[in-house]
Amino acid sequence: MNNEFWPSHTKDFIKLLGIEHPIIQAPMAGGPTTYELVAAVSNAGALGSFGAAYLSPEQINSDIEKVKELTNKPFCINLFTPEQEHATKVNKKVLEKLDEFSKELGVHNTIPPSASAFTFEDQLDVLIHNNVSVFSFTFGVPEQKYFKTLLDRGIKIIGTATCVEEAVLLEKAGCTALVAQGSEAGGHRGTFESTSGLPMIGGLALIPQIVDKVNIPVIASGGVMDGRGIAACLALGASAVQIGTAFLSTKEAGVSQPWLEELKNTKDTSTVLTRSFTGKYARGIKNLFIDKMKDLENDVPPYPIQNRLTRKIRDASKQKGDSSYMSLWAGQGSA
Amino acid sequence: MNNEFWPSHTKDFIKLLGIEHPIIQAPMAGGPTTYELVAAVSNAGALGSFGAAYLSPEQINSDIEKVKELTNKPFCINLFTPEQEHATKVNKKVLEKLDEFSKELGVHNTIPPSASAFTFEDQLDVLIHNNVSVFSFTFGVPEQKYFKTLLDRGIKIIGTATCVEEAVLLEKAGCTALVAQGSEAGGHRGTFESTSGLPMIGGLALIPQIVDKVNIPVIASGGVMDGRGIAACLALGASAVQIGTAFLSTKEAGVSQPWLEELKNTKDTSTVLTRSFTGKYARGIKNLFIDKMKDLENDVPPYPIQNRLTRKIRDASKQKGDSSYMSLWAGQGSA
Repeated sequence: MNNEFWPSHTKDFIKLLGIEHPIIQAPMAGGPTTYELVAAVSNAGALGSFGAAYLSPEQINSDIEKVKELTNKPFCINLFTPEQEHATKVNKKVLEKLDEFSKELGVHNTIPPSASAFTFEDQLDVLIHNNVSVFSFTFGVPEQKYFKTLLDRGIKIIGTATCVEEAVLLEKAGCTALVAQGSEAGGHRGTFESTSGLPMIGGLALIPQIVDKVNIPVIASGGVMDGRGIAACLALGASAVQIGTAFLSTKEAGVSQPWLEELKNTKDTSTVLTRSFTGKYARGIKNLFIDKMKDLENDVPPYPIQNRLTRKIRDASKQKGDSSYMSLWAGQGSA
Repeated sequence: MNNEFWPSHTKDFIKLLGIEHPIIQAPMAGGPTTYELVAAVSNAGALGSFGAAYLSPEQINSDIEKVKELTNKPFCINLFTPEQEHATKVNKKVLEKLDEFSKELGVHNTIPPSASAFTFEDQLDVLIHNNVSVFSFTFGVPEQKYFKTLLDRGIKIIGTATCVEEAVLLEKAGCTALVAQGSEAGGHRGTFESTSGLPMIGGLALIPQIVDKVNIPVIASGGVMDGRGIAACLALGASAVQIGTAFLSTKEAGVSQPWLEELKNTKDTSTVLTRSFTGKYARGIKNLFIDKMKDLENDVPPYPIQNRLTRKIRDASKQKGDSSYMSLWAGQGSA
């Protein structure tokens, strides 16, 4: 790409982040973002992001050290803003259905494993201790005290919005920049202010509306697969783009063979929105699990309970090299 | 807009259509596209389109004559591809609910009015007789014989696709160009090949995928509200854009006061997809009718039956100056 044509706000933003290209690799938690991928992306002049939400502080610390061995460029660590977990009686039909899958795959999964042994604050401490360049988050706005701690240390903060209302809250909280997640995006919806249900606004409509309402840089995400998408998002007023799915098929990504195979065979209509895997809406490639859970979609318990309930099933499916019960996150541009 | 930066395929396409700007005003059937609006748009150097689907051949003829009195520039007439109407027993709960609305508004609406007295072929004859420049259609591919008749007379044909599969079929049928309708678009979804359900693909992902698979010009539609959207769509590979919602608030548009008021107060999350008004999915501003019909959404009869069943209710609501029971079509960029 010829950076001569980049708008000045793009030039300012990449200078602020200390990168060369207005491209952020999306922090895909749960495997795809290995330390090798993060380092390779940062070494190439974009911003590598590590999706560390599911990892213990020890694991995060070890991965950060490995990234730093491979690059001295800036990179980003992404966490999920913690949510109050309420005691929830899980719908009997959901448990029976998951039990059916477990038996088929030969795993024991009837009793939900308990909550994590570590907190968001424990995870965040590792980022601060390691003085990472950028911290990004999804699923809501962390407490105000964390903003001060991070910003005081020069750590930049990037939040995620799926509508104008959320973008305004992120700017108010003190974010350095924000990701505008269009309906095209693969993986979890970052929605946290649900006064209007689940916003599913396409990037062409979402990006300019957010750009018009906030003064911090906007990073466009969802459906961007190549230079055409990047040029389009900059034209819409974005300062940079965040790209996920396009990185899944790189050799550095931690993507299993069945997932890669499915990605190869996608078309524009292959992905759907489902909350059956984790309890939160996310976009992935349609498969047997989604089909079989369809009638129970509204009955599954909220995140993170459903996420824990299905974890062993998804792992066993992957172990068997069979995509039927795996979460195959992908965006609408995956083809 | 500075046309120096337009890609060559854009320059070729507007030359082919005989217009100056790569902008097509969307053919919004049912009122908004008056002959004044169509003529004003064409006189301004874009392509005005008349949404004539619901009109009799006599009305269409009269409107074409009026447009021609106001402009000698090219314009477009849009029709709906006819669908086989099957005898359908309407769900009792749907009829009871509509009856409730009718009583509230003081209209008699219990018995569905019968089908139109004219056919698609009758409508098309008027276009041919008047030798209009461009014919556009939604909801499927008209029979092959019509393509030959129209193209032989030099009438250009534009179809509507909501996924790659549909785009390929439109090119194969002989379309001059096609509209790629992103999920952001207001009004009816143009979907006709539903092997994958209802494709709701955002423009950022849809446009480049269609451009890569067809050799005819692609017109981007959905969520485009200003120069930023136009520049973005051209960057994605589109030859032109089709804009609807942004024309609704012009003085030439046939938009009633309650609809205009609602448009003024929209935000990015104000619109939803519903089939309660017409039996086909369409995007409009959330209102009382949509709320009250929500639980019956899957029970309403297909288009055009539901469209006829709700017509008097919508008209009565408009007459009262109350938007509660009106179809308030709008896209995700309406704010």
